Amino acid sequence: MKSKKLCRIFPTQENMAKRVAIVGAGVSGLASIKCCLEEGLEPTCFERSDDLGGLWRFTEHVEEGRASLYKSVVSNSCKEMSCYPDFPFPEDYPKLCAQFSIPGISQNTEVCRVTKRPDFTVTGQWEVVTLHEGKQESAIFDAIMVCTGFLTNPHLPLDSFPGINTFEGQYFHSRQYKHPDIFKDKNVLVIGVGNSGTDIAVEASHVAKKVFLSTTGGAWVMSRVSESGLPWDMLFMTRFHNMLRNSLPTPVVTWWMSRKINSWFNHANYGLAPENRTQMKEPVINDELPGRIITGKVLIKPSIKEVKKNSVIFNYTPKEQPIDIIVFATGYTFAFPFLDETVVKVEDGQASLYKYIFPAHLEKPTLAVIGLIKPLGSMIPTGETQARWAVQVLKGVNKLPPRSVMIEEVNARKENRPSGFGFCYCKALQSDYITYIDELLMDINAKPNLFSMLLTDPRLALAIFFGPCTPYQFRLTGPGKWKGARNAILSQWDRTFKATRTRTVQESPFPFAILLSLFLVLLVAVFLIFL
Amino acid sequence: MKSKKLCRIFPTQENMAKRVAIVGAGVSGLASIKCCLEEGLEPTCFERSDDLGGLWRFTEHVEEGRASLYKSVVSNSCKEMSCYPDFPFPEDYPKLCAQFSIPGISQNTEVCRVTKRPDFTVTGQWEVVTLHEGKQESAIFDAIMVCTGFLTNPHLPLDSFPGINTFEGQYFHSRQYKHPDIFKDKNVLVIGVGNSGTDIAVEASHVAKKVFLSTTGGAWVMSRVSESGLPWDMLFMTRFHNMLRNSLPTPVVTWWMSRKINSWFNHANYGLAPENRTQMKEPVINDELPGRIITGKVLIKPSIKEVKKNSVIFNYTPKEQPIDIIVFATGYTFAFPFLDETVVKVEDGQASLYKYIFPAHLEKPTLAVIGLIKPLGSMIPTGETQARWAVQVLKGVNKLPPRSVMIEEVNARKENRPSGFGFCYCKALQSDYITYIDELLMDINAKPNLFSMLLTDPRLALAIFFGPCTPYQFRLTGPGKWKGARNAILSQWDRTFKATRTRTVQESPFPFAILLSLFLVLLVAVFLIFL
Repeated sequence: MKSKKLCRIFPTQENMAKRVAIVGAGVSGLASIKCCLEEGLEPTCFERSDDLGGLWRFTEHVEEGRASLYKSVVSNSCKEMSCYPDFPFPEDYPKLCAQFSIPGISQNTEVCRVTKRPDFTVTGQWEVVTLHEGKQESAIFDAIMVCTGFLTNPHLPLDSFPGINTFEGQYFHSRQYKHPDIFKDKNVLVIGVGNSGTDIAVEASHVAKKVFLSTTGGAWVMSRVSESGLPWDMLFMTRFHNMLRNSLPTPVVTWWMSRKINSWFNHANYGLAPENRTQMKEPVINDELPGRIITGKVLIKPSIKEVKKNSVIFNYTPKEQPIDIIVFATGYTFAFPFLDETVVKVEDGQASLYKYIFPAHLEKPTLAVIGLIKPLGSMIPTGETQARWAVQVLKGVNKLPPRSVMIEEVNARKENRPSGFGFCYCKALQSDYITYIDELLMDINAKPNLFSMLLTDPRLALAIFFGPCTPYQFRLTGPGKWKGARNAILSQWDRTFKATRTRTVQESPFPFAILLSLFLVLLVAVFLIFL
Repeated sequence: MKSKKLCRIFPTQENMAKRVAIVGAGVSGLASIKCCLEEGLEPTCFERSDDLGGLWRFTEHVEEGRASLYKSVVSNSCKEMSCYPDFPFPEDYPKLCAQFSIPGISQNTEVCRVTKRPDFTVTGQWEVVTLHEGKQESAIFDAIMVCTGFLTNPHLPLDSFPGINTFEGQYFHSRQYKHPDIFKDKNVLVIGVGNSGTDIAVEASHVAKKVFLSTTGGAWVMSRVSESGLPWDMLFMTRFHNMLRNSLPTPVVTWWMSRKINSWFNHANYGLAPENRTQMKEPVINDELPGRIITGKVLIKPSIKEVKKNSVIFNYTPKEQPIDIIVFATGYTFAFPFLDETVVKVEDGQASLYKYIFPAHLEKPTLAVIGLIKPLGSMIPTGETQARWAVQVLKGVNKLPPRSVMIEEVNARKENRPSGFGFCYCKALQSDYITYIDELLMDINAKPNLFSMLLTDPRLALAIFFGPCTPYQFRLTGPGKWKGARNAILSQWDRTFKATRTRTVQESPFPFAILLSLFLVLLVAVFLIFL
């Protein structure tokens, strides 16, 4: 895709399409462009790097100000759950761009400053200053969609590790990690059991001498391969389960959840059980960790007491462990360096955004933040639905509630007061995937009515309620309705199985034997259940 | 350990300790030495390589006539299940040798020929010709224990792959495989879903461009990490389960087994389900395969129709797949090149050995084959128990039945007639771990009597019957009884958990909340079970 430099300096006129500046061409940025085009807005996207796909584009070298992947990274969500709602199987992003003829992405263009125009209270317009090939340019836009994500600024809390300055080995943030070769025959310490930390420890364990994975709070670890080998999110993310979860008291939900998770492996026996089990932390998705622990290839350790020249002392354990490399998988923080604090203020890992999108206190709702949320589900359809909803607001079709109501919503979320039902999340950006998306869809009349559908199209209604909440559901109706959605929902399992059924297998050859021994089997089953 | 050259040329006298030549210093060879020493026999062990541990010793280079491991190999059995019965936690073999002061291992010594002495029918003696540093030596022994295993001769059926000669890429037997580096960015095809094939495909998938795993018959794949994260063999190998299995009709056992195995992942959906599900093939142990399949990193394929210059065509699929490297994980055959066919004849992967140990037709029972069996359990304690039993025969304490009875037993096994109960094994060397070992123990009065134990030591009796059948059970009584056995059995779970509980975890902090919601939970549980 060729970069296209767009520079607009004249103010907008009422009868012209609204011009929207989109900051970042990652998965949320691309969705935002698409949503703008669908609704007749005129998007211009500024992308700092020379490529599209943001986080999901692997590069051999870490780039300043851009998210960075390691070579082996695999999405935590399965294909069916993490596609754009109207585009199953996004095999690559260029393809998406071709399909929807996404134009106007200015690559290699950094957004330096986004400021309110002097007449902002009337026009809601913004001035955007960009830097492209050393040249600054300025342009005026009717609206801004900020799609920079939350994974660009590494969080490296060195102060919490006494002695780290005396350490003579190598240490770096997980963001710097690309290939496991560097760990060959080394004693490796990975700090933090998030998704990156766990992935890196497991990968290192194939080549390293010894791998320690240190965690203060522990974590629940889940496998992509869930019951009977089905993708975990296609079982977990159903409207039925969601309803059940949210109508049960938090202790019951938490207990049930931990029972389910522990049935794979007992997290206490593997040294991983979370310290605080009443609050739900985002579970870690890793298929290999327990296998690496049980075979002694990864050793789970508590937090670090002291770092020495060539070793580390863990809390509650007297023995010093020789260490050559430390990887800080200590996560990320986010910031909007191009925005003034009066526009969006980040405090304690939170921004005061109504529905995680609009700054609650702005005079005009012409700036939306897309993708600044950590749903217990896939990011791609969440960002897409946010963009779709936000575009309706930018267009003026959808009105935001009064500022006081928005500020109240934001404050309630900051307090994080438990309702006593469903999951109790411990982090600000976490939310219930289905519940959150439904809220947005309801606002733009895009939520399918299951009750009436039960009469008109019962097969679809049941698939929607009991089946995986795949993103196609979000495009069944409302603005941006997609004709293929129904069919995509009804064929979602076929596509899922097709990917792994690469060798045809005959059906079980002994059904008759089973019939014969049915009585016996039942007897045995009853007997075995009580073992 | 220093190699010691022993050369005996004088015939034995009645009052002297019997001299036993042991061929091979692998795990079975070491066990044989130990058992000889325990019973006052005089062992001399000839080891072809310059090290001990046989199969279990990794070398960077493949050695002719020796089993070969890849760097990443991990035992399929957990530590508690695969130790020597009187030596928990064999961290390394030199340690074992030190503990039992194992002497007389002639390293770098190849056994060229083992022949009956002219007076064999009277003395049962053998002449052993060895080669050490280019020098042949000959010695006479009262008995031979053959411990060369079944994993040294690679089986490479190139004739079954039309076009393999035109293939311009690289191909080799899995035996040659050491490190995954060679697969970097290549299209890799692994043929055979045994333990090696699966391991290699999974390892390759971390670095290769594409990995295909081709199987004709499919396989059941199990994880080391079983229910609640306990080691699979500690749950599966209990006397209680064994009794249950063997008292149920084969179709019921097979059905129940496949239901259990499919609860991890549905083998049909993953293209892995075995074609013949009534006969039990040794299950493959791999923790990572389903995770690699579901993420598209390993593609399961049917058998191969044709190999071309740079590609392969699979059966039932028209598309040609470009391939750079083919790994034949097609298994091994075994042979005894130093023995005459009249002593042990290998036919169709079987040798005519009574109880898998003694050639049934020999005039004198002075040659025992140790470790030529594939129990559905650990090899190490099986070989050790075989050696212990064989030594009683070699000493003359235990008498073998008449030749006709032995030949009948061997023939019955060759026919492999299904009994209609328990597992139905499809391969000659496969057998029921516990049943087989109990047979041997019974013969030498080393099988503990559970009924009387239930009165005298009920705690131990219950642990033996319902708990994992750990090898310590075999040394509770009889010749070579080990005092530490009882304690080792009662502390087996502690040792298991200790290895993975490397971070202390507090107990669940909300038991009272659970009590409060107990009624609700029960309701939910009942409800969820019927989902």
